[in-house]
Amino acid sequence: MSEVRKNRTTVDIFGQQYTIVGTESTSHIRLVASMVDEKMREISSSNPSLDMTKLAVLTAVNAVNDLIKLKDLLELHEKEIER
Amino acid sequence: MSEVRKNRTTVDIFGQQYTIVGTESTSHIRLVASMVDEKMREISSSNPSLDMTKLAVLTAVNAVNDLIKLKDLLELHEKEIER
Repeated sequence: MSEVRKNRTTVDIFGQQYTIVGTESTSHIRLVASMVDEKMREISSSNPSLDMTKLAVLTAVNAVNDLIKLKDLLELHEKEIER
Repeated sequence: MSEVRKNRTTVDIFGQQYTIVGTESTSHIRLVASMVDEKMREISSSNPSLDMTKLAVLTAVNAVNDLIKLKDLLELHEKEIER
């Protein structure tokens, strides 16, 4: 039987508390939460009329956009290494 | 004077419509939106009691988590290329 140690970390994102459960370290989860919080504040300050749900969805859209770009870059690098 | 062409793309994410304005192509924005929509449905199905805002925030947390891991991987690759 295998047992994976799971951490429970409570973080504050845009004034709300979230308990994140996962195998990541508490410090990693805090870093992720602070980046999401920062991004939400950034989007909110340029779009003050957005409600919290829309703000969170647009934050997710931003992060996934960065993720896809980085994946493309990583693929390029992998090809570079193969050569 | 420089002019950057901006696209307006309306997408559907978790049953709500969002108009995304940016320099990315419409097809890229649609891809990003479909990934966010899929991730929200995935998190929602394992946590049916979450409200939409929490769901969106946790989706953003997931995406930023993946983003940090990918950044670390990319750094490793860059060091690999340098050698």
